[in-house]
Amino acid sequence: VAVSARNRGKDRGVSLDNFAWFDSAETMAREAGADAFVELIGGSDGIAKAACEQALDHKCHVVTANKALIAVHGAALAAQAEAAKLALNFEAAVAGGIPIIKALKEGLAANTFKSVTGILNGTCNYILTTMRETGRDFQDVLDEAQKLGYAEADPTFDIDGIDAAHKLAILASMAFGTPIDFDAVPVEGIRHVSALDISLAETLGYKIKLLGHARLVDGAVEARVQPYMVPLNVPISNVEGVYNAVTVEGDFVGRSSYEGRGAGEGPTASAVVADLIDIAAGRITPPLGMPVAQMAAKPLQPVDGHTGAYYTRCTVQDCPGVLADVAAILRDHGVSIEAVRQENSVENADVPLVLILHETQEKNVRAALTDIEKLPAVKDTPRLIRIMTAAD
Amino acid sequence: VAVSARNRGKDRGVSLDNFAWFDSAETMAREAGADAFVELIGGSDGIAKAACEQALDHKCHVVTANKALIAVHGAALAAQAEAAKLALNFEAAVAGGIPIIKALKEGLAANTFKSVTGILNGTCNYILTTMRETGRDFQDVLDEAQKLGYAEADPTFDIDGIDAAHKLAILASMAFGTPIDFDAVPVEGIRHVSALDISLAETLGYKIKLLGHARLVDGAVEARVQPYMVPLNVPISNVEGVYNAVTVEGDFVGRSSYEGRGAGEGPTASAVVADLIDIAAGRITPPLGMPVAQMAAKPLQPVDGHTGAYYTRCTVQDCPGVLADVAAILRDHGVSIEAVRQENSVENADVPLVLILHETQEKNVRAALTDIEKLPAVKDTPRLIRIMTAAD
Repeated sequence: VAVSARNRGKDRGVSLDNFAWFDSAETMAREAGADAFVELIGGSDGIAKAACEQALDHKCHVVTANKALIAVHGAALAAQAEAAKLALNFEAAVAGGIPIIKALKEGLAANTFKSVTGILNGTCNYILTTMRETGRDFQDVLDEAQKLGYAEADPTFDIDGIDAAHKLAILASMAFGTPIDFDAVPVEGIRHVSALDISLAETLGYKIKLLGHARLVDGAVEARVQPYMVPLNVPISNVEGVYNAVTVEGDFVGRSSYEGRGAGEGPTASAVVADLIDIAAGRITPPLGMPVAQMAAKPLQPVDGHTGAYYTRCTVQDCPGVLADVAAILRDHGVSIEAVRQENSVENADVPLVLILHETQEKNVRAALTDIEKLPAVKDTPRLIRIMTAAD
Repeated sequence: VAVSARNRGKDRGVSLDNFAWFDSAETMAREAGADAFVELIGGSDGIAKAACEQALDHKCHVVTANKALIAVHGAALAAQAEAAKLALNFEAAVAGGIPIIKALKEGLAANTFKSVTGILNGTCNYILTTMRETGRDFQDVLDEAQKLGYAEADPTFDIDGIDAAHKLAILASMAFGTPIDFDAVPVEGIRHVSALDISLAETLGYKIKLLGHARLVDGAVEARVQPYMVPLNVPISNVEGVYNAVTVEGDFVGRSSYEGRGAGEGPTASAVVADLIDIAAGRITPPLGMPVAQMAAKPLQPVDGHTGAYYTRCTVQDCPGVLADVAAILRDHGVSIEAVRQENSVENADVPLVLILHETQEKNVRAALTDIEKLPAVKDTPRLIRIMTAAD
């Protein structure tokens, strides 16, 4: 019945003549008299939040593609929607090309989930895929992605992992029945992933992917966005380019995986319209799967308590004794080495030294790397990338 | 409220003491006074069909895992359920580990679909995976699968593709909005897939998978179950063992893929309980997505009209002139060759001759192969396996 946007005159390929125009989305939410309000503005606060609140205040269902809004204010908005018996649907907010929100809420509703893992940002996956296929470096591929429109002019939200963390916070909340807690998701993006690490990963049987991963460890939620070494026989390693994927592990269903485009106008439209069809058909469900009032906060596993297997790589001057020094430091921190890879080279030249570390406490590895960096033969800051294992 | 089964005394790990017992499922459907009837009997006719009809007659929602029943009588049962405003839910009938029925009906409801493709039978996928990994022959692996419980004592329904065809008929109906037509799905199973073809496929960059594939070609439905050569860069080629996968291509969403366990008690229970939750929550939808009365039969593409790229392999005596004869026959039938592969060998020995054929009419290839088989230098019946291309 009505439309609001920043620019009224823009050619959108469809005529808006038959719809009321509002300069203010908030006013529209209050006054248009619509049954449902579709928010495609973006941003966790500001107009988007105000307009959605206004809509719910005025008996109007809300459909949104806004992951930041849901990740930060989802619990409050869901409570408001529930109290008013209104829908707050956001399928387009997480991987629009796959109905994963509906799968968690309905299709897999019989399950208790152990973990949820996803390639949640198409820009990062495109950059990592292109780096691997071409051997080019991060900045070079990012520049090209910006020219092609695959990355924003300000790419921070994508490449620093914030966008993926928004989506992971939403998925973890729905999978584990805990209130959404975006601030509890530690984030590392892909700026430091080098062409060298990608090429070494391939030699070792891995692909580097930016994953959002959340699991329950002894009843605590461990959620994090970071680059992972994914073994080539794990299905998610084959998800390339702008595609997103989500794998959930449920107690009855086992591993169930979903892959599709993450964003773009087609998949977003598909998800938004499916949300509207649910409303039109009267299928109104609690926005987060279970009513907000029934959700119980679970303890959080702090980063210091994370355990995993790790790949680490540093540049060393290839002189006698350096490996002995590195190995001794790791031993002193209780970290055990699964494999070592050092390229043959001319003596005294700088070469990459790669260590694959057994499952261990991340804080111990980090402490060891701080000491290793101080060795005179070590020429750069050691890189640390987690390896995906069967425990993830 | 009530249970019926063949064997009352069997230990099911749960006590049935608090439920009424019925020796007849039909009587139970009529007389138990339940809100919902769960049918896990199997078979397209007989007790399963009679009991579901009785349940719907007596205002009782139906949940079933029975693909044969839905593939053969789904339209009639759906019409009966719609008329009575009852649910007829069958998520467990197709790939219980992925909520693909709900995805087609709801999550992707905004799309018009171009194609649906799936690895729909876990037994076949397990056998093909094991043949590839071990180099063993079909019969040998089937025997083992039967011992391990991955294949039935009578494996016909699985290995001859009937089970996959039941599921494809259901998926095609829901994707294209046409009445289910199981008899319109030509079926070829995996009995004739040899260890040699699997190994040659790998050399050529393919894996052999039994696929159910349906697409719209000029408004006609082309649906078929057959072994395919799937290129290694197509995601479905990485789906191994007892896993199932379904990929749909929608006009807005693009390619959207789902992977999970096909059957087994956990995934089946997950799907059945999700169907029951939908009923309990009052989310009753037309069983096939759109009301049966609104479905329009689309013309069927007969097998003779199918086009595709093909792999063909026969054993030839390696004497001068045989390749010229084979190539001439193909040319005379208007079939063009993309690549030839003939192993080096001692002259006059029997060797496999592999031809990769460009996109062409299948009937022309079959006519050519009939003539090729008559050549004196050709020692066996040429095998024909379709190659998956971008057009599929």
